Order: sequence, then structure tokens, then C-alpha cells
Amino acid sequence: MPNEDRDFIQSIERGFAVLLAFDERHPTPSLAELATKTDLSRPAVRRILLTLQKLGYVAANGSRWSLTPRVLSIGQHYSASHALVETAMPRLVQLSERTHESASLGVLDGADVVYAARVPVRRIMSINVSVGTRVPAYATSMGRALLAWAPAETVERVIAESRFEKLATATVTSADALRAELDRVREQGYALTSAELEEGLISLAAPVRDATGAVVGVLACSTSSGRHTPEEFRAAAAGHVVDSADALSADLGSPTR
Amino acid sequence: MPNEDRDFIQSIERGFAVLLAFDERHPTPSLAELATKTDLSRPAVRRILLTLQKLGYVAANGSRWSLTPRVLSIGQHYSASHALVETAMPRLVQLSERTHESASLGVLDGADVVYAARVPVRRIMSINVSVGTRVPAYATSMGRALLAWAPAETVERVIAESRFEKLATATVTSADALRAELDRVREQGYALTSAELEEGLISLAAPVRDATGAVVGVLACSTSSGRHTPEEFRAAAAGHVVDSADALSADLGSPTR
Repeated sequence: MPNEDRDFIQSIERGFAVLLAFDERHPTPSLAELATKTDLSRPAVRRILLTLQKLGYVAANGSRWSLTPRVLSIGQHYSASHALVETAMPRLVQLSERTHESASLGVLDGADVVYAARVPVRRIMSINVSVGTRVPAYATSMGRALLAWAPAETVERVIAESRFEKLATATVTSADALRAELDRVREQGYALTSAELEEGLISLAAPVRDATGAVVGVLACSTSSGRHTPEEFRAAAAGHVVDSADALSADLGSPTR
Repeated sequence: MPNEDRDFIQSIERGFAVLLAFDERHPTPSLAELATKTDLSRPAVRRILLTLQKLGYVAANGSRWSLTPRVLSIGQHYSASHALVETAMPRLVQLSERTHESASLGVLDGADVVYAARVPVRRIMSINVSVGTRVPAYATSMGRALLAWAPAETVERVIAESRFEKLATATVTSADALRAELDRVREQGYALTSAELEEGLISLAAPVRDATGAVVGVLACSTSSGRHTPEEFRAAAAGHVVDSADALSADLGSPTR
């Protein structure tokens, strides 16, 4: 599409590529490491780093570079411009208190679910994910609850973009198996997964609807198989997760189900 | 500085300017509104929006644009690459449980404090800020606890960049008054502010040190003057905030004070 390409500003793409090359395995990369990781030339990476430094998003320590907390402000503009996140916070705190587990708000982005808000619990073996973490929709209760009531074209797009890798013993690894799971989620009113994204991880999610009735997010709780069997967790948590999701939907002006 | 300017990539600056023009007051701006807010031409904004759309950071709904949850992932790379944030989470949960107030981790960015992590409490009148929110260092307990043990050049830079606006009845409005407050913070071992950032807001913060002994962040708790007087809050929370900050410093390998 030549028309689209003419409008595409490559420097912006490259700027984000360099920013995203900082991660837990490379928290303080050198210029050479960033060039390798982004597949850009060293002079190109150098100019991008100097630009990002001047904008305050990265800092240099000798020959090593690191992200500054200013990058957090970019995400904050998402939270501030989406009433969903702010409205969800008290419901997440409530859900976490009732289930004694961490509670999360998830939203769909491409074929992934992104954690848009999270209330953690304190525990040695707690599940540690931060806001902005991405997990594949096909292998998570959050993804299933987001997809079960989504328009058919969204479901087909996510299926087309999903890799259906076997991430743990029970991962759903085909489009047909996922479609069958979505039928079950619609019947139940919530999604429950065990040993799909990770061994030992049990997760339960229910849909959140906006004023038009469309599913715009999910509330979820997770536990470890060391604490509960999936059926125990269903009995203990499903009612609370669905109640909190329904209450949040009502907060957002959703017509009652 | 012509040499620096030659290396500066203006498209990247403009890309961020457009991203940051989405906020709570303009969650779904039109192209024309974005052009006005960023002081860029409409054709320039249009190309930037089409680029950001292709990269998945913004989405179009008719003539309105909005941020996608993908922008949260940029901040996640900060959290993932900074052990401070992950290490702080259980300490924040603990602090919130002990004080029955929201607990926050703050880090210095320019002359501002940025919320890098936060554990909220449920309450009708709770203080609602999300990760990435920025507040001026001079007017907050977090800023004072960050500056009290900072190198002199950091303190002078923040003072030079601070506007010392009177934000509430008790705001410190001069560099000298701030320096006197920093002396007091050093004596106390923590900072306490009341009615400085906002009327009715009482806040208490203590420094977190890394393995080199440098202050790399602060733990803080806030309450409202409707619930406590500043002295009541000091009696109830100062010990807990300092203990949690010391414990987090020890987690990070800091030598004991």
C-alpha cells in the first residue's frame, strides 16, 4: 500500500523499537546491544538514544543506558483517558479482599490481553505481574472472557494472529478447541483456566460491559494449584469475580443482564 | 548546541507530543484538536496518527482518536527493567495493610515525583492516583524524602526547575523554605506534609536506599484531614512507613543505617 507507506514515519517506529528493547533481561543495555536487538545500525541507534535522552525517556550511565520513570507517564495517559481503569480500582480492591487473591483488570490488544490495572495480595508465592504486562488471549481466562462475547470478526482476527503454542500441560492448541472453550464460557458466564499459560496457574475471569453492552474488559483472579484445585477455586471465587464484574459493568452504565 | 541538534530526531519528539496530548480532558480528540494542542500542522498530525495507528498505539473511531492499551506496555518495560518496582510490591501491600491507607512508591524525574507503583485501599474518599502520575517534588512528602539525602547538585537542579506555586494553604513557596524543610526531614528520617499539594491532603514518606546507600525512591502513605490531624497521622503511620522503607532498602542490599 504505497499511500500508507508514504504517510508512515519510520523514525517514530524506530524510536519505539529502541524504547522497547529495554527489558528485564536487558535493563541497562549498551549502544551495541541495542543495535543488535533492534536490527538498526549503531549510528541510527545513537541518534535515537540522544533524542530519547533529550526528551527525558532514557538516561546514560557510562556506556550503559536505562529507561527513566518518565516512560511511566505515557501509560498514565491511557489510564487517565479511560474511565474503565479508574472506575475499576475500587472493584479490584473489593474483589481482592473477598477472594484473598490478587485481582486484575484486563483489556484486549491485538491477540494479547494487557493488564490495565492490578491489586496485589501479599504472599510468598504470589503471582507477580505489573500493569502493561501482555499475555496471549488464547491461553488465558482473561482472553477467553474477552472473546466469548466479542464480534465474530474480532474472534477470527485473534485466532488468525494466535500461535497456539503449548505453553503448559493443558494449553488449548487449536482454533477449534478455543471456539469450543468460548461456547463453554458463554454458558458459564465466566472463564476458568488451569495449567494453560503456566504450570500451576489457575485463573478465573468475567466480562465487564460498557453502557452499550459491549465487553470492554475483564476482571480476573488467579491462584496457584498449590493452594487450590480448579474446582475449589471455582467454588470459592467464581461468584465473587462475576459479582464484581457485574458491579463494575453497572458502574459503567451497562444495562443489567 | 548545533552538534546536539543535528542528532535530534524531530519526528520522535512530535510522535510523543501527539501521544501525550491524549489525557483525561481530551480522551478522544479529533485531528484538529490534536493539531491545536501540539502546535503542529494538521497534515503533520495526520501522518503521526497514521504511524501510531499502524504501530498499534492509537485507534480511530470515526473522526475521533483514542489511545490503545498498548501504550501501557511502554511503562511496563520500565517496571520490568527496574528491580525496585518489583521488590517494592510486597512492601507496599504490607504498608497498606498496617496503615489502612493506600501506599505508594515514588521516584524522582526532573523536578517531579512519579508514582512507580501503588497499592490502593477501598474507601469512598480514597486518594485516586495511578502509576505514572506526576506531582511536583517541592510540594510533596515524597519529593522531600527524595531530596533530603540527594547530592547537592540534584537539590539545586530541582529547586531551579521548581515553580514554587502556592497550591494550597501551607505550600512551601521558596527555595529557602524548602531547604529548611529538607534539614528537618534529615533530622526526622522521614517527611510529613499537610495542605501543601492539595487542601486536606496529609502525606508521609521515607527514603529507600539501594546497595550503594543512595536514595533511589520513597515509600509513602497519604490520608485526608477529615480522617486524621497531621500529628495523629504521624503517630499512627510514621513508624510503619519508615520500617517498610528500611525493609525495602535491606531487600535491595542497602547497608543498615
